[in-house]
Amino acid sequence: MRLVTYRTTVAEQARLGAAVDDRVVDLARLGAVAGVPLPDDMLAFIDLGPDAVRSATELLQAHEGKWPVGTAIPAENALLLAPIPRPRKNIFGIGLNYVEHVEESSRTLDTSKDLPTKPVIFSKPPTSVIGPGEAIEHNARITQQLDWEVELAVIMGRRTHRVAEADALDYVFGYSVMIDVSARDCRRAGQWIYSKGQDTYGPFGPCIVTADEIPDPHVLDLSLTVNGVTKQSSNTRHMLFKVPHLIADISAAMTMEAGDIIATGTPEGVGAGRTPQEWLWPGDVVEAQVEKIGSLRHPVVAI
Amino acid sequence: MRLVTYRTTVAEQARLGAAVDDRVVDLARLGAVAGVPLPDDMLAFIDLGPDAVRSATELLQAHEGKWPVGTAIPAENALLLAPIPRPRKNIFGIGLNYVEHVEESSRTLDTSKDLPTKPVIFSKPPTSVIGPGEAIEHNARITQQLDWEVELAVIMGRRTHRVAEADALDYVFGYSVMIDVSARDCRRAGQWIYSKGQDTYGPFGPCIVTADEIPDPHVLDLSLTVNGVTKQSSNTRHMLFKVPHLIADISAAMTMEAGDIIATGTPEGVGAGRTPQEWLWPGDVVEAQVEKIGSLRHPVVAI
Repeated sequence: MRLVTYRTTVAEQARLGAAVDDRVVDLARLGAVAGVPLPDDMLAFIDLGPDAVRSATELLQAHEGKWPVGTAIPAENALLLAPIPRPRKNIFGIGLNYVEHVEESSRTLDTSKDLPTKPVIFSKPPTSVIGPGEAIEHNARITQQLDWEVELAVIMGRRTHRVAEADALDYVFGYSVMIDVSARDCRRAGQWIYSKGQDTYGPFGPCIVTADEIPDPHVLDLSLTVNGVTKQSSNTRHMLFKVPHLIADISAAMTMEAGDIIATGTPEGVGAGRTPQEWLWPGDVVEAQVEKIGSLRHPVVAI
Repeated sequence: MRLVTYRTTVAEQARLGAAVDDRVVDLARLGAVAGVPLPDDMLAFIDLGPDAVRSATELLQAHEGKWPVGTAIPAENALLLAPIPRPRKNIFGIGLNYVEHVEESSRTLDTSKDLPTKPVIFSKPPTSVIGPGEAIEHNARITQQLDWEVELAVIMGRRTHRVAEADALDYVFGYSVMIDVSARDCRRAGQWIYSKGQDTYGPFGPCIVTADEIPDPHVLDLSLTVNGVTKQSSNTRHMLFKVPHLIADISAAMTMEAGDIIATGTPEGVGAGRTPQEWLWPGDVVEAQVEKIGSLRHPVVAI
């Protein structure tokens, strides 16, 4: 399933939907017609676990192509929000998790040229999240070094406490795309939250693809363009610490909860690593995509 | 007001209370008797803003010493939880915010001896929070360098977006105590979340004192003992970046929300800064206090 959070007008409440062909199907409304109670909110749906995923999948299969009136709308009439518009805690970000990016970072940022021996973790607050198409803010009073990072996002499906690497993927609800926007000149004493946690620095979406459709998250092409020019192009197989390792490592110390998000790190090609360095400026358009999931397209605007 | 979150038995739901003399008064229940609707949850109360604070204060004054049956219990019968048992996002932590602590850190950790020119911010997940008396976990598989840090905690009262320093204290709901437990050997490429964000590393409480009772948060003694021996003893006047500066700085980039927590940094006297270095071990008891607020007492246990 390709799950989305959408609304039909600016005034309407955000609702849970599934993208099927050229429609957005409202799962709660389809469920109501079929006598299967399903929630209208992504986090409530994730909380219900595998039974909800199975019920929703069966419902969609049973009704595909003959949606009862009021249960589906043309995709063009749905405004997509971030799949989880307001995460329950900060996003876990992973730094320096692609080999070539470690090298480019050590040349131009303050990081080591040695590969990390353990995952490097930071966080982005819930307030950094924006949905597909929303503007990335360029605040020239704060930064002159706004940078891009395309990443595979992992959405946890349940409470995850000291899970073994071999079992870790069982705890994943699904996958999405995140751009880890980073103001390189806002690092402070090595800490990254001020550089990566600002409002609008977490473009997220366009959907969550449930884990059953991506049995191996390490075979996915991911890429990013700025104004149509490719800046990053890699594959998730180049991750230094793979998703099961990240989950085992984080959950060894920090209990994760249903709906928690891990942004798994970015490959080479960021602006800071280029010669000369390149940064985002108002008027630029950033587009990021991960194979099997979809793409995000965001303008950069001055504030 | 001294606001608490409490329950009377392990089975009962956590509820909002006010500590008055030797009683814990249930604000929702007292409100119901008086025809003043008040919530039974701390975050819901904070969301209501100054009107709720004023109404609750007036209610407590009107009934003090003659509590209607069922609206107050002896303090000994109330089990205090963290005042906000489950924050809505990661706690904003401030590093290197007392001059002497900057010096001791530079001698033994990987930080600079120069005073930071801007606040150094990191985060602690909501899952790190524990209430008064709960055990701090010592996981010997992960750390051999568990350390203490007593801090004044600031609880935000409303949405705070690019607020000027002169106005910043208007956005504060109240103050509390936090111990920023830190596993010094879990820093990774300079990032602190793994060292400071582990489960149980955020002892928090025992109450939130509303801001009207602490007009100046920079005149408070704060101290910490381990097994009864004083390790930290300072005053919040020694903060490098004062509370209004922290709020202005964070909110310039990251919108804060009602109920957000800032742990404002620790003074000198941490274990890492001692000669020889000292660490927490199972069986130790850590006690922290901040003047006008109260104290926290936590055993360290092996897991």
